[in-house]
Amino acid sequence: MEAHEFFLQLALILISARILAEFASRLGVPTVIGELMAGIILGPSLLGWLHVTEQLQLMAEIGIILLLFKVGLETDFDHLAHAGRNAIAVALVGFTVPFVLGYATARYLFGFDNMVALMLGGTLTATSIGVTVRILQDVGRQNSMEGQVVLGAAVVDDVLGVILLATLYQITVDGQISVLALARIIAFVGIFFLLAPLLARLLSAGIQRLLGKTTMPGLIPSTIIALVLLFASLANLLGAPELLGGFAAGIALSRRFFLPFGISLAHHSAFAERIDVQTTPIIQLFTPIFFVVVGLSLDLRQVDWGSAFIWIFSLTVLSVAILGKLVGGQAMPNRHPIFRLAVGISMVPRGEVGLIFAELGRAAGVFGPQVYAGLVIVIAYTTLLAPFWIKLFYRRYGHHPSLEEGEEPPPEIPDQGFHPG
Amino acid sequence: MEAHEFFLQLALILISARILAEFASRLGVPTVIGELMAGIILGPSLLGWLHVTEQLQLMAEIGIILLLFKVGLETDFDHLAHAGRNAIAVALVGFTVPFVLGYATARYLFGFDNMVALMLGGTLTATSIGVTVRILQDVGRQNSMEGQVVLGAAVVDDVLGVILLATLYQITVDGQISVLALARIIAFVGIFFLLAPLLARLLSAGIQRLLGKTTMPGLIPSTIIALVLLFASLANLLGAPELLGGFAAGIALSRRFFLPFGISLAHHSAFAERIDVQTTPIIQLFTPIFFVVVGLSLDLRQVDWGSAFIWIFSLTVLSVAILGKLVGGQAMPNRHPIFRLAVGISMVPRGEVGLIFAELGRAAGVFGPQVYAGLVIVIAYTTLLAPFWIKLFYRRYGHHPSLEEGEEPPPEIPDQGFHPG
Repeated sequence: MEAHEFFLQLALILISARILAEFASRLGVPTVIGELMAGIILGPSLLGWLHVTEQLQLMAEIGIILLLFKVGLETDFDHLAHAGRNAIAVALVGFTVPFVLGYATARYLFGFDNMVALMLGGTLTATSIGVTVRILQDVGRQNSMEGQVVLGAAVVDDVLGVILLATLYQITVDGQISVLALARIIAFVGIFFLLAPLLARLLSAGIQRLLGKTTMPGLIPSTIIALVLLFASLANLLGAPELLGGFAAGIALSRRFFLPFGISLAHHSAFAERIDVQTTPIIQLFTPIFFVVVGLSLDLRQVDWGSAFIWIFSLTVLSVAILGKLVGGQAMPNRHPIFRLAVGISMVPRGEVGLIFAELGRAAGVFGPQVYAGLVIVIAYTTLLAPFWIKLFYRRYGHHPSLEEGEEPPPEIPDQGFHPG
Repeated sequence: MEAHEFFLQLALILISARILAEFASRLGVPTVIGELMAGIILGPSLLGWLHVTEQLQLMAEIGIILLLFKVGLETDFDHLAHAGRNAIAVALVGFTVPFVLGYATARYLFGFDNMVALMLGGTLTATSIGVTVRILQDVGRQNSMEGQVVLGAAVVDDVLGVILLATLYQITVDGQISVLALARIIAFVGIFFLLAPLLARLLSAGIQRLLGKTTMPGLIPSTIIALVLLFASLANLLGAPELLGGFAAGIALSRRFFLPFGISLAHHSAFAERIDVQTTPIIQLFTPIFFVVVGLSLDLRQVDWGSAFIWIFSLTVLSVAILGKLVGGQAMPNRHPIFRLAVGISMVPRGEVGLIFAELGRAAGVFGPQVYAGLVIVIAYTTLLAPFWIKLFYRRYGHHPSLEEGEEPPPEIPDQGFHPG
């Protein structure tokens, strides 16, 4: 691709994302919807001006990794750990139920073969960590207790999703599952989550020492972003999703993270503050690209809107997709039904993670064009509708006492904060 | 390319650039040398870990465009206009003399054919605007009078270079020159320079209005960078070098730029300050990538260091290359010889612009491997040695009265400023 063409595409993405997000904001709609719409409008679904190229995809991936870094940076680790048992339960149930229901629906209701049913079930397990987190930011609930449960559950879901993808991929290629290969992935992901925060904390202590000595400006933007990218690669190397590398780096540099065993590394609040101020513009630049690219990837023209099958199939699968995540939210017997509902709705968006599954299924020849189109509709609906529901939900129940336990206002950094919407 | 591989490459580039720049800074060497060396070490010349890929090239180009944007932002337009006559004279002489001398040397001393001689002359006309500007920043002379002459001359040189490249390219393809096509390029470049600042100013007034109304943060990083990229594409569309699009956008948003005919667009100092603070981390992230990629592009292994021809050829051409630019500096009869020398030395680095010419010559089959290798040596020497000379020059003559007229300290923004080295 010619450089000027790439620059024009980026400019178009940034400007249209901003304009549509501003519109969304005026209409009281979550701003992420504006960015997704920008992608749908510019992409193959409508105007066809832009397509997902390798270069745009890389920019988008930097965007989601940096978004997760920011989320990690703002996460209260104690808070997240406290949400841990709930999050794991929500993730496991919210993963299993859509998988089993999706499999059964495809296999027994629509009569598809085993492989199609497995892949379809897999697609429904996805949770879009990016969209989910962004919606919670949009409604100002990122640091609430239910926000932490959703974040934790989305992280666990992503890890489970990678394991499932690897398994399904193996089945399509080898026709069977290697338990050894799976155990290796699980062990590596475990190692990553144990060691990454320690390593990131060590490296950041080095950066902080250098900061006191250097006379050259620009240390934080280049080294912190390098650190985040390094951890994304490291995550990939160990078989974990790349964006979780960004999240681990963010957690490690967070003001509220302390290493286990009381290992104390000097980490001044002023340093965390500088990291925040100097990385925020970079994060604000890249993240809209991610959401626009998700919109670009949804090709709604592939859908044959006149076919009865598409409507029946997609509405059935959509119901299963929504139901599965709502049931996931019920996996917290200690919580009030309102709290469970908040978590359940927040887990509904499939976004880019669902698209990865659907695309794999299509590329492997498992999904025919009709099934693929139906899944694209399901993914689009869950991604575009859930933010509305969440906004409406909070307008109605935002002050319910069950949602206010553990509530804590997010740190306010005027005009540098991240899209609170 | 796999995303994790790209992230690892970027992390490696950012970290090694920083480490070597810190080393350079401790040794009292311009920090840009550290970044160029990082590229030479990681690249095909030494370790061979990294090569210039399309993706890295795009990141590097964003880096140089943003660097020129920053330069534009910090430029005092009156100051630059005041330097204008000198800058044009320096550019014209510093362009013509290396071209004619290079042509004559290749044609009559080494007996190459006409096309080789033309291309070689063309390669020697280049001035690396990026390296030149960065060195002046490193020695804290960016806003001095001689700094403005160098900047202006480098800009004019870049425009002349594009016109010459287009001409030589036409000759290699069609065997003749179309005067009409050339006139078109020149007219378009003229239109760009007349209209770009006005357009950029109008757009930025719109952004500023929006800033007062929006409730979403992140306006400045996304829209200002989009504006810069848009102007880079626009420059390319009209046949001008892309980086001059970034420069034009920077000039237009500068605190010290006023539109002709007294057209007044509200442009508050506070807005300029916010642009500066919020774009600086992004610029600091991208610019080192550019200089590392310049280092990566220099493949010093291609040189057959045992050949006598290489040594004779490259030393002769190197002398011509240096002499030509020093003569260019003499084109200011109203200036003191010390001032002329300062400008002449600053124009010596060929950097990436020289490499573009050399690469075009090689790709078109005009340069054989020996001539190409010789030119790579010449480009490497001018790029790596000039910063040393400039540093030494200023240590010796920095307080000479001829250099202090029109001197003005650059605006200090603590810890957000750009690599003053």
